[in-house]
Amino acid sequence: MPEPPRRQGTILVVDDDDVSRMMMESVLRRGGFASILTARSGEEALTILSGITPDCVLLDVVMPGIDGFEVCRHIRATPRTAGVPVIIQTALDGAKDRQNAFRAGATDVLVKPLEAYELIARVSVHTANRMMTARLEEYHHRMEAELEEAQGLMAALPPDTERLEEFRALGIAFNDHLRPSSAIGGDYWTAWPFEDGRVGFFAGDVSGHGVSAALRAFLLHSLLVPPPTFAEDPVLLAAHLDRRIHQAFQGSRHFVAGVIGILDPVDGVLAYVGGGFRDGFIRRADGSSESVPLSGLPFGLVPDMPRSVRVRPLVPGDALVLFSDAVVEIADHPDAPADADAFRLWAMAMIAQENPPLDQLAQRLGDRFAERFGDHVSDDLMILSAAITRPPDMP
Amino acid sequence: MPEPPRRQGTILVVDDDDVSRMMMESVLRRGGFASILTARSGEEALTILSGITPDCVLLDVVMPGIDGFEVCRHIRATPRTAGVPVIIQTALDGAKDRQNAFRAGATDVLVKPLEAYELIARVSVHTANRMMTARLEEYHHRMEAELEEAQGLMAALPPDTERLEEFRALGIAFNDHLRPSSAIGGDYWTAWPFEDGRVGFFAGDVSGHGVSAALRAFLLHSLLVPPPTFAEDPVLLAAHLDRRIHQAFQGSRHFVAGVIGILDPVDGVLAYVGGGFRDGFIRRADGSSESVPLSGLPFGLVPDMPRSVRVRPLVPGDALVLFSDAVVEIADHPDAPADADAFRLWAMAMIAQENPPLDQLAQRLGDRFAERFGDHVSDDLMILSAAITRPPDMP
Repeated sequence: MPEPPRRQGTILVVDDDDVSRMMMESVLRRGGFASILTARSGEEALTILSGITPDCVLLDVVMPGIDGFEVCRHIRATPRTAGVPVIIQTALDGAKDRQNAFRAGATDVLVKPLEAYELIARVSVHTANRMMTARLEEYHHRMEAELEEAQGLMAALPPDTERLEEFRALGIAFNDHLRPSSAIGGDYWTAWPFEDGRVGFFAGDVSGHGVSAALRAFLLHSLLVPPPTFAEDPVLLAAHLDRRIHQAFQGSRHFVAGVIGILDPVDGVLAYVGGGFRDGFIRRADGSSESVPLSGLPFGLVPDMPRSVRVRPLVPGDALVLFSDAVVEIADHPDAPADADAFRLWAMAMIAQENPPLDQLAQRLGDRFAERFGDHVSDDLMILSAAITRPPDMP
Repeated sequence: MPEPPRRQGTILVVDDDDVSRMMMESVLRRGGFASILTARSGEEALTILSGITPDCVLLDVVMPGIDGFEVCRHIRATPRTAGVPVIIQTALDGAKDRQNAFRAGATDVLVKPLEAYELIARVSVHTANRMMTARLEEYHHRMEAELEEAQGLMAALPPDTERLEEFRALGIAFNDHLRPSSAIGGDYWTAWPFEDGRVGFFAGDVSGHGVSAALRAFLLHSLLVPPPTFAEDPVLLAAHLDRRIHQAFQGSRHFVAGVIGILDPVDGVLAYVGGGFRDGFIRRADGSSESVPLSGLPFGLVPDMPRSVRVRPLVPGDALVLFSDAVVEIADHPDAPADADAFRLWAMAMIAQENPPLDQLAQRLGDRFAERFGDHVSDDLMILSAAITRPPDMP
């Protein structure tokens, strides 16, 4: 007789009949299973199950005390064992028993008398399935925990509450809505104050997806915070990003679509360099809106890219709104905005209707957008608003 | 009759008998399955399977032409469908058929005449299992691809071949052995040249594991490359790292265990600041060795930590060897080095025996270590050597 294959997994055999139990154990051993536990009653099975999670349970129905159905229900009701396959053995004429077995949560039902070949085949299939699923589940849980921690790190990159208060004292109310898709990604913004009361910012999207995009976003963050000494000139800062990102991402054809801006609440000016980001818009105090083109080569694509600054007036009551691709890349909803202009119109209609406070623009837009189209968003979603709330404190 | 639960998944029913096939389809529909495909022959089944991957196949054995066993073997032999559960129906007296069904790779065998309840129960169990497993497998593949890309980004952080040649021209042969564990992690080293022919380096390990550690390593990298202007003073660079890492990791209680060093091949000196890294060693040209203590608070734990520089002579023929925790954290191998001194002795014995070229020290040590203890290494493994190969070019 050829040596049977060695089979992984622990099998629990439960039967009050000594001959049946020993027969099953012997068949399973000959079939290659080395780790077999046995219980002579439902009570004994539950005791074993309280300490051990087998990979398959082979269960007799009719036993004095706790019967097979009850053991099965207990296994299904206990989270730790809920996924363990349970094979219930019934008598040949027990159609009602088979039905009850499935009702109790059995994975499979075996008809007595058992054929050795079939017993091994069924236990093997269920045990192998279970072990593979358990491995995949373990991986899933481990990665989700890792990604959750990484998401926390990503979420901590934008300015914290204290920093936002600092900006508010300067007359600028930043407000964001960040909703990561299931995996981490590369949507990112940050801002930094200058000594003269102006505030610099960057908002953008690192190309690629998932973990790699997050790694690149971390690198980008380190280029901006703390800002280099020349950061008050957006052209110099853009050249710095182009050079450093190109160097760091070299050969990977990755880049950062975004915008560098400097808000000057004293002179009422926004100066910015667009780098291939979605066009934003300014919501004016009088209720009108205008598009803010952010076209241009993404940062880091070419190291010595000539860039020019564009300026816009931005006075108390005005708000700049920026957003990532996720907002206009919803293919499967008929009412979803198809481009940046469509999103601006959608946003302006929402603002006209609800008149949200200027310092909550991004959150409110994001919430309404998520209510309406949330199920269809597959990318990280970022909306950022920067409102000029009041004339700045004068010395 | 209560409404049956809606069940997900596509079932393929294969039977040449019209009545049987329609009966099974009807039972499954009443059981809540909405997506059911049918085939009247093995040939038709294979045609359907060439374009569609069902979540469960219900298969008659005896059919003219290609029979059920052959269809089942085809499903198992095709990678795309290999995991699809196959339920084969056999006649009640067909013990041999049941055995052949399992031999052909059947997941389950159903005895005719079929009970409606049992048919639904078995198809439901197998379909639900399959769909969950497929989802988990899809997740696993997607994450592995993401992590592989991220591993590539991590692997690109240390100096590239061109940069290593530059160091070699200065008289310093860096050599590394980096073996990431399955997930990405935080082992990291880099080096940068100064204009006067000295070379700065950092080697270390970011606390934590997996994706988050990799994110932190990226941030660390950006603090070191390009090096700040004051990087030729290791105490100033250490203060910079302490401050910036503390700021960036704030609240997370994470830090970087490592060493900042400056190699001066002209004056034959290593100047370094240890930051809680495993003690390295110097392998002298005369075959002796000495430990290089790298104790001290890890970088970033405290922002204003007074640090002092230690110095060692390092002349042509000498090599500094640094290594990460993975080398001395192998619990389950009786011969594994238990601490940095034990690793030094193991390494010196290996070097004495094989006499590897000085510019391949780390690779050779790493390869031998992996051969010997590789299966027991569960963390990222880094060994780094920096050998002074020759007196530098004099002007």
